[in-house]
Amino acid sequence: MATVTEQRADWRVRLGDWIDSPGPRNFVIGLIILNAIILGLQTSPEIRTVAGDWMRLINAFVVGVFVLEVGGKLVARGTRFWGDGWNVFDFLIVAISLVPDSAGLSVLRALRILRVLRLLSTVGHLRVVTESLLKAIPGIGWIGLLLLIVFYVFGVMGTEMFGESFPRQFGHVGASMYSLFQIMTLEGWSEDIARPVMDVYPYAWVYFIIFILMSSFTVLNLFIGIIVNSMQELHWTEEEAKQAEREDQARQERERMLHLIEDLHAKVDRLESEANGRDGGR
Amino acid sequence: MATVTEQRADWRVRLGDWIDSPGPRNFVIGLIILNAIILGLQTSPEIRTVAGDWMRLINAFVVGVFVLEVGGKLVARGTRFWGDGWNVFDFLIVAISLVPDSAGLSVLRALRILRVLRLLSTVGHLRVVTESLLKAIPGIGWIGLLLLIVFYVFGVMGTEMFGESFPRQFGHVGASMYSLFQIMTLEGWSEDIARPVMDVYPYAWVYFIIFILMSSFTVLNLFIGIIVNSMQELHWTEEEAKQAEREDQARQERERMLHLIEDLHAKVDRLESEANGRDGGR
Amino acid sequence: MATVTEQRADWRVRLGDWIDSPGPRNFVIGLIILNAIILGLQTSPEIRTVAGDWMRLINAFVVGVFVLEVGGKLVARGTRFWGDGWNVFDFLIVAISLVPDSAGLSVLRALRILRVLRLLSTVGHLRVVTESLLKAIPGIGWIGLLLLIVFYVFGVMGTEMFGESFPRQFGHVGASMYSLFQIMTLEGWSEDIARPVMDVYPYAWVYFIIFILMSSFTVLNLFIGIIVNSMQELHWTEEEAKQAEREDQARQERERMLHLIEDLHAKVDRLESEANGRDGGR
Amino acid sequence: MATVTEQRADWRVRLGDWIDSPGPRNFVIGLIILNAIILGLQTSPEIRTVAGDWMRLINAFVVGVFVLEVGGKLVARGTRFWGDGWNVFDFLIVAISLVPDSAGLSVLRALRILRVLRLLSTVGHLRVVTESLLKAIPGIGWIGLLLLIVFYVFGVMGTEMFGESFPRQFGHVGASMYSLFQIMTLEGWSEDIARPVMDVYPYAWVYFIIFILMSSFTVLNLFIGIIVNSMQELHWTEEEAKQAEREDQARQERERMLHLIEDLHAKVDRLESEANGRDGGR
Repeated sequence: MATVTEQRADWRVRLGDWIDSPGPRNFVIGLIILNAIILGLQTSPEIRTVAGDWMRLINAFVVGVFVLEVGGKLVARGTRFWGDGWNVFDFLIVAISLVPDSAGLSVLRALRILRVLRLLSTVGHLRVVTESLLKAIPGIGWIGLLLLIVFYVFGVMGTEMFGESFPRQFGHVGASMYSLFQIMTLEGWSEDIARPVMDVYPYAWVYFIIFILMSSFTVLNLFIGIIVNSMQELHWTEEEAKQAEREDQARQERERMLHLIEDLHAKVDRLESEANGRDGGR
Repeated sequence: MATVTEQRADWRVRLGDWIDSPGPRNFVIGLIILNAIILGLQTSPEIRTVAGDWMRLINAFVVGVFVLEVGGKLVARGTRFWGDGWNVFDFLIVAISLVPDSAGLSVLRALRILRVLRLLSTVGHLRVVTESLLKAIPGIGWIGLLLLIVFYVFGVMGTEMFGESFPRQFGHVGASMYSLFQIMTLEGWSEDIARPVMDVYPYAWVYFIIFILMSSFTVLNLFIGIIVNSMQELHWTEEEAKQAEREDQARQERERMLHLIEDLHAKVDRLESEANGRDGGR
Repeated sequence: MATVTEQRADWRVRLGDWIDSPGPRNFVIGLIILNAIILGLQTSPEIRTVAGDWMRLINAFVVGVFVLEVGGKLVARGTRFWGDGWNVFDFLIVAISLVPDSAGLSVLRALRILRVLRLLSTVGHLRVVTESLLKAIPGIGWIGLLLLIVFYVFGVMGTEMFGESFPRQFGHVGASMYSLFQIMTLEGWSEDIARPVMDVYPYAWVYFIIFILMSSFTVLNLFIGIIVNSMQELHWTEEEAKQAEREDQARQERERMLHLIEDLHAKVDRLESEANGRDGGR
Repeated sequence: MATVTEQRADWRVRLGDWIDSPGPRNFVIGLIILNAIILGLQTSPEIRTVAGDWMRLINAFVVGVFVLEVGGKLVARGTRFWGDGWNVFDFLIVAISLVPDSAGLSVLRALRILRVLRLLSTVGHLRVVTESLLKAIPGIGWIGLLLLIVFYVFGVMGTEMFGESFPRQFGHVGASMYSLFQIMTLEGWSEDIARPVMDVYPYAWVYFIIFILMSSFTVLNLFIGIIVNSMQELHWTEEEAKQAEREDQARQERERMLHLIEDLHAKVDRLESEANGRDGGR
């Protein structure tokens, strides 16, 4: 790593700094917003027929600038470029943007709008907020896995039990897990899923109610985890500040006391020695 | 500002104080409630035919009083009137009230009921509660913007991908964002939107589930922000009080100690000097 | 009050104590549960036809015991009986129970089951939990009123604007407020209410989305209020205990220090006086 | 218990330790996952026809290993085996697995998937998470009972009042309580239950809205209980650590002070005695 840094010619450093300087950055932000608006307008056929060519032109220009920007960073930072997740994020989004507009697939065309997400990496505040949100995810970790296991178990059970009679909801494990996700969100879980199933399997309510209780309880705890984390962060910083300040003041006073007492020691010692001195002087 | 205040004639000060005094204020509150009831009754055609004229009369009177009140404040406070958001709020509501009842537009007639919201500005307690609620909004700021971006991105994607087949839900970006709002509230997201779409585009579930996870996660964090803020406020005040009290007592004791030790110093010094004095006396 | 207490004959005191003693209390609890089961069974016509007479008999007996119990308390406590909300609660429920079973009105028959709620007042733990829940309600107070005003304002607006076209949802203010409550719970707000309305009034989404945002935001804050309260209670008690203990120990140490320093003063004073004494002795 | 431990031959101890050692444990985890995948695949008839025999073979093998494992633990630990809830959990799941595959009942076949839950007891992290979730349940206790009573009371009332006209929703107490659970989750409570009922019994909204307010308020408090508990745990540990550290430092300083002051005492005493000594020396 260090060797790489040394190898990098001076102009690359300057290039990297320039790209990150307010001027170019704000220009890029402007382009992202402009592009966002155009991509929004392009969704309406009327506008496409009227100003379609202009829009394609502008988009091409915007993509060009993005390519130059990311490419510039890539050149400037070398291998260190890949060290920052945001760079990878930008790289992928720009890569997607290079998919030709003409390609018929609506999905590919749709993905172009992801460019707008570059705002998250380019606008400082949004970057901070996003990072704080992402920080909360690891905390989910094991509870998330637990939830996944519960989903899989109930998914397989549901397929085994209701699959034949309800192919749409429980036809295969995938369908069942989708239905379970819907049930977890409590959307139409009873009228659209549980009640019809119960008309065929009267005791199905056991399956559904147990799942709802388990999943909502797990999700609740998953949320609590996130809440607790983010609370403690905001929490302790403030708490710390106040406590530290109080403590400092108290410590200073204690130290002053110690100092004074030590002085006393010295004085009394002196006093004693003098007294002895007088005696010795006889 | 100050100059303005000086310019204001004495009677204006008195007028301003009089309008804010309990008497007139309670009278206005009474009128608001009376008006609220009448506007409620006016919604039923039967009652309108029976006592419509009386009601119109009373409403006119109420509006008249409001105009006098707000006008009075305007005269009394001069430019400072616009400094207080609540005054602007009252002014706008009274302005809306001046739209003629006869105007056929039901929307305009409907807006008259907004007068009832004047209770928020006139009743002290409600005013406090409302302000405390509004205080929480700035904290949303950037997360709100983040949510908006997510909405826009998914809105455009949805329109591109499902627009042709589902004009009602994803016909244009606006329709898509409305549908996404509905999905975020989890209302019929699966039975009424996702499942039909999935019948045409089998892999649409990716789009919907990712959106639900992202939006609900963001909203959760948005709520946490609000919760954390309001908790810390109520939280630290109490914490502070107790801690401060404890600290005070401890400090007093420490100070007393310091005082005593300093006395000791003085005494020992005196003792020493006397001892030397005696020696010098020889 | 005091005078009343004195007037009460001794036997009344003993009666009151006896009714509250474990024996009778547990007997009453047993009867409530027995009655709950029977009232449950009575809902099925089959069981009614088989054992209807027995059940009526038992119910009559249970009600009789309740009457004696509450009456006994009433006699024992005199006017103080009405001072305790739980007594009033029991009194009302027993009063309702005295409505003749034979009365055809299903509603009246249905209210008999409210007797089961007597468990809340009779079982100690449930009583505590219920009280802790009720304690949270006052905190809602003003925010609740605010929510009510919002409901009323949107209710009247909705009736004015959508009343003619949607009598079922917005026919009169009452219907509108019910619909708004449904919308607040996010149940079918879009598919069953907003979308149909938007087909007639394209801009109705403004009304619905503003209401959803306002109401859910207010309810969120209402919940936060409750959460914060109950957290602080459980919170500070523990916090207090720990802090107090720490503080005690620190105080003891400080006091011991003060004591020692004061001793020092005394000694040094003595030392000084002696020194002077020796000088004076010359 | 102790006697039992002594009785246990040495080889049993070694057996128990060996089963819990990483090697066998990871082997079991692997088998569980393999089995999970197969049970998932078995849900599709196509795959069953192709590789059904192989799968049955593997399942049989997996079950065999499970039986050996649990049996081994049972032998190794003797009566202590039943002391650990997780052992009982494993025992039951393996017992269920021994239900013959051939048995036609889809329910029994479906229960085989529960084996996957053995991951919760075998993977250390999942075990911890699960235990932390279960720890929260007792806290629910009394509020849960309160909720149950509310359910029962409203269930019986609903059956009495709406049973004849709405057998599907309120036909018997069980059906009513299921409907109330659905209403508590706010799923289709209005469009699918309350509105139809209100068409027959116009005042039914009182019943439904009171129930929604009561149940959601109770559930909210039930959640708060869980939140508060889990917050305090994570909360105080950290708080404690910081406070303790601060306190330690302060105590050390105070002790040093005490020490110094005591020294002073000694010195002054010596000084005094010497002074007296000199006097005595005359």
